[in-house]
Amino acid sequence: MSQEIDDLGIGTKFSKRTKRIINSDGTYNINRLGTRKGIKDVFRYLTTVSWLKFFLILFLGYIALNVIFTLLYVLCGTEHISGIDPENGHPIIQTFFFSIQTFTTVGYGGMAPMGIATQSVAAVEAFVGFLSFSLATGLLYGRFSRPTSKLMFSDNLLYTKYRDGHGLMLKIANERNSVLLEVEAMLIATFDQMTEDGEIKKRYYRLPLELNRIEMMTFSWTLVHGIDEESPFYGMTEEDFMKAKPEFLVMIKGFSEVFGQYIHSRKSYTEDDMLWNKKFQAIFGPNEEGVMEMDVRNINLTTDE
Amino acid sequence: MSQEIDDLGIGTKFSKRTKRIINSDGTYNINRLGTRKGIKDVFRYLTTVSWLKFFLILFLGYIALNVIFTLLYVLCGTEHISGIDPENGHPIIQTFFFSIQTFTTVGYGGMAPMGIATQSVAAVEAFVGFLSFSLATGLLYGRFSRPTSKLMFSDNLLYTKYRDGHGLMLKIANERNSVLLEVEAMLIATFDQMTEDGEIKKRYYRLPLELNRIEMMTFSWTLVHGIDEESPFYGMTEEDFMKAKPEFLVMIKGFSEVFGQYIHSRKSYTEDDMLWNKKFQAIFGPNEEGVMEMDVRNINLTTDE
Amino acid sequence: MSQEIDDLGIGTKFSKRTKRIINSDGTYNINRLGTRKGIKDVFRYLTTVSWLKFFLILFLGYIALNVIFTLLYVLCGTEHISGIDPENGHPIIQTFFFSIQTFTTVGYGGMAPMGIATQSVAAVEAFVGFLSFSLATGLLYGRFSRPTSKLMFSDNLLYTKYRDGHGLMLKIANERNSVLLEVEAMLIATFDQMTEDGEIKKRYYRLPLELNRIEMMTFSWTLVHGIDEESPFYGMTEEDFMKAKPEFLVMIKGFSEVFGQYIHSRKSYTEDDMLWNKKFQAIFGPNEEGVMEMDVRNINLTTDE
Amino acid sequence: MSQEIDDLGIGTKFSKRTKRIINSDGTYNINRLGTRKGIKDVFRYLTTVSWLKFFLILFLGYIALNVIFTLLYVLCGTEHISGIDPENGHPIIQTFFFSIQTFTTVGYGGMAPMGIATQSVAAVEAFVGFLSFSLATGLLYGRFSRPTSKLMFSDNLLYTKYRDGHGLMLKIANERNSVLLEVEAMLIATFDQMTEDGEIKKRYYRLPLELNRIEMMTFSWTLVHGIDEESPFYGMTEEDFMKAKPEFLVMIKGFSEVFGQYIHSRKSYTEDDMLWNKKFQAIFGPNEEGVMEMDVRNINLTTDE
Repeated sequence: MSQEIDDLGIGTKFSKRTKRIINSDGTYNINRLGTRKGIKDVFRYLTTVSWLKFFLILFLGYIALNVIFTLLYVLCGTEHISGIDPENGHPIIQTFFFSIQTFTTVGYGGMAPMGIATQSVAAVEAFVGFLSFSLATGLLYGRFSRPTSKLMFSDNLLYTKYRDGHGLMLKIANERNSVLLEVEAMLIATFDQMTEDGEIKKRYYRLPLELNRIEMMTFSWTLVHGIDEESPFYGMTEEDFMKAKPEFLVMIKGFSEVFGQYIHSRKSYTEDDMLWNKKFQAIFGPNEEGVMEMDVRNINLTTDE
Repeated sequence: MSQEIDDLGIGTKFSKRTKRIINSDGTYNINRLGTRKGIKDVFRYLTTVSWLKFFLILFLGYIALNVIFTLLYVLCGTEHISGIDPENGHPIIQTFFFSIQTFTTVGYGGMAPMGIATQSVAAVEAFVGFLSFSLATGLLYGRFSRPTSKLMFSDNLLYTKYRDGHGLMLKIANERNSVLLEVEAMLIATFDQMTEDGEIKKRYYRLPLELNRIEMMTFSWTLVHGIDEESPFYGMTEEDFMKAKPEFLVMIKGFSEVFGQYIHSRKSYTEDDMLWNKKFQAIFGPNEEGVMEMDVRNINLTTDE
Repeated sequence: MSQEIDDLGIGTKFSKRTKRIINSDGTYNINRLGTRKGIKDVFRYLTTVSWLKFFLILFLGYIALNVIFTLLYVLCGTEHISGIDPENGHPIIQTFFFSIQTFTTVGYGGMAPMGIATQSVAAVEAFVGFLSFSLATGLLYGRFSRPTSKLMFSDNLLYTKYRDGHGLMLKIANERNSVLLEVEAMLIATFDQMTEDGEIKKRYYRLPLELNRIEMMTFSWTLVHGIDEESPFYGMTEEDFMKAKPEFLVMIKGFSEVFGQYIHSRKSYTEDDMLWNKKFQAIFGPNEEGVMEMDVRNINLTTDE
Repeated sequence: MSQEIDDLGIGTKFSKRTKRIINSDGTYNINRLGTRKGIKDVFRYLTTVSWLKFFLILFLGYIALNVIFTLLYVLCGTEHISGIDPENGHPIIQTFFFSIQTFTTVGYGGMAPMGIATQSVAAVEAFVGFLSFSLATGLLYGRFSRPTSKLMFSDNLLYTKYRDGHGLMLKIANERNSVLLEVEAMLIATFDQMTEDGEIKKRYYRLPLELNRIEMMTFSWTLVHGIDEESPFYGMTEEDFMKAKPEFLVMIKGFSEVFGQYIHSRKSYTEDDMLWNKKFQAIFGPNEEGVMEMDVRNINLTTDE
């Protein structure tokens, strides 16, 4: 039986219609004010940006820190760096490269610090430099070990024939070449209802699925909610769906062997993502040699009923 | 039904009233004697102190180790470090910087070790130095990957109208810009009761909540304990609460997508943290464009009933 | 009661007989098309290949990167590297070793970069070099911390006397010198059945086991499915099994103390792996001193009934 | 009701009495033959040995690798290392220190490799050296992040008055200055029984506890098995216990906030560890200021009933 749930932490009464709360890809369409950012958020950002951006940020940090230390050396006086030969180029440029050599601990020795001030700056720089690469090591490992779900959802939610009536169906598949174990699914529908007071009340339903857990997802899994008498959608036509402006949230949790931990993934569908009276095509089957084959790009293939 | 529980690992019979066991922020107000500290506790300390303290400790360790090696070099005789030029400063100062150059593996070469004793010390120092930065790498990553809950609790526990009677309410919100999944809550109340023998017995109750689990906490969650006939607080007035000196412990567990693991958080309330006949204001709602907005700083906003 | 399950994510209707889906060792016999590879997959590959291959790949990457930087230095002109003495060998060879000295941050100094172009290349190389070793650190740790199950399965699935009838039995043992806790097992049988329409339909059954969970597996565990009236195999002879061409999938999950996390392992058996009317020999027992002894190599020992 | 369980993965029928399977501290008294060791087992060893042994092994590995490379340099001819001055000591000794300088990437430069053979060896050595420190970094982090339970068990299992009859009691406490959450306990008793055939059969019972789970263990937890009519020990005297030679296994699982994961701990008791007609003393209580105080060293304190 579809269970109406009181709250999803989102609340129920609002004076005007709300835009969709969850975007299609599962991210939230919420302005959060008053949250504090911390170093952890920087770490999180650095572990989630693209690889290109990541290395760019690292490199820019590398250059920036060396510029700062170059200025410190200049303040102490570049004459305290032995081996700086004006014929080799501007002293400040050479100081910059001396800074690089200290920061990375290469330390050729052609240029070397002299005097307490400059040697102290170099001592601090070697410390900061080595520690920076320690930091980069941690970030790199954080990026590698962060489990990414690479779970594909069908673009569409289908309203299709199911048993004696109709059902809502969507499909998930694992993009990665591995299996997900202990896969659990939850489908939640929310839509606005006008109350007698003229207020708009959001209602939430947890829609029962044909199966809400499978032990092993090798290829794909078609999630099915049968629209029986107990479903909140019982008797609704295509126009009724459009008017109710439902938002469907599917939440998947599974154990990834690759990462040795549970991963979560979700996607949101609105009535615009729905297809009517279509059914999914199979995306796997035996090829000529009898070996099972699957093409994940076909996850969205549908045909008329 | 409120379940009286026998023990929370805290025990029940004491001869005098106890101060609160759990501080407001969830830390424990307990003296532990006889616990052994280990290296793990040092590691734990270093992963939980503030960033400023952390880098300060690292830097001081860096300097301290180099001072120790400087003394070893002096013991071997600073004349065994080639390149030490008295005109450059005191030999011991220069030895210190030579130590720095070896420890960090910069190794300019202007100063270099000679003779078996000094070269051996340098061999050990290079090993210790590189290993120290390996240690720092592990600590840095430990700091980054340690899940911090950043869960906000309302400062107050409200006694407020609920359905036909009254209830106790508190609010939690996620400070971080992400969601918590599979959020479970438990509310435990303990208060002293005088027994016939004149002993003071601590009683523990697990207070049932309107909801003790939500699948996804996007904004906030108001935890509600309805004070019905089965609640141990049924029929108690404000004075009764003050006399009983209750301590409320709320324990939250949720799955953090950011960290890919479950995090726990808790907070303690005493009767001094209670507000009477007030209710919480909503902290989220649609803004002008219809986009949901939430201000976590408003978590403590209340109004009269 | 054997539970027929609708789907294992594999589907049920195919027009021709399929080859076995899961290989004996648990890997999948599936062609996946359209999956995208990402850097994470490279990371996964590098954490799962053999140690020999791993170090070989690292070393080749080391050489390759240095070859690239050598070309860059040559482009800038090898005369900008001081200390290159044609009498020491071909300048390009010496440039290669200069590149090595910069990449690894050894930086002897005998050869050193001059001029902005070459010094800039060296600055980038020192950055890339140090970061490469950071990467290697992450990969090394990834390899170490990846839980491997080292769970042994008996090569054969036995059809043997059990209680008043017969049963299917297999054995698992922990190769590692530790225990598995909270060990759960699931046995799934799939076989083809011809339907009236002439289609071949795959049927899946979850076979109940005598025990599907033990708290602690010290030595080994013999999994037993009793073939009673409710078993799909009730009444089947050896020929019936051969004709049905069943595929048995056993899935094990346990908590590894060594790794502090749950590990999964599985194996597939076909009718060719079955032994008839044999029973397993015990693989542990007390030795002369009364100390329990176990030889995991005996996991496959069977005797006639 | 005490549940007799068929197997603990240990088996039931043996021809002679067995020595205890699990040692007091939870380790296993089992000879395992035929297990294969892998690199993972080396990693596991290195993460579990004492800190002193660990650093000793690292240092010896450091010296050993450098000795190997020294031999390689000698094979190539020490004359290919510039800067080796026979007046500074034996060339092989100086070569050793040159190897150290390359391995650790200090690279002073006073000694530097010449010729393709020696430079190639140096190139390999710098690679191996840096990678060795990467390895050490991974091992260090593995050591830090490995959760250790530091759970204390009372040395004795008490047979004591409980309610109207008697019970078996033991105590656990957390040595670490933190709490354990979601603590679950299981108590299993095994003892030999002589069957009619003269065989000795091991019987296993899962003994029900007064509480088998507490949400939060702040101080300590006294586990209690009430010996009622359903207990396998009902009616047994002290002599009966001695004759049956029982082995009790207590298994604890809890969530450690420190490590953010579940930890397991266990201990075994035999009849020699039992105390008769004694009860545990409380180990915590309020001190003069009313603050709760606990001394874990008192976990074994008992008094007569």
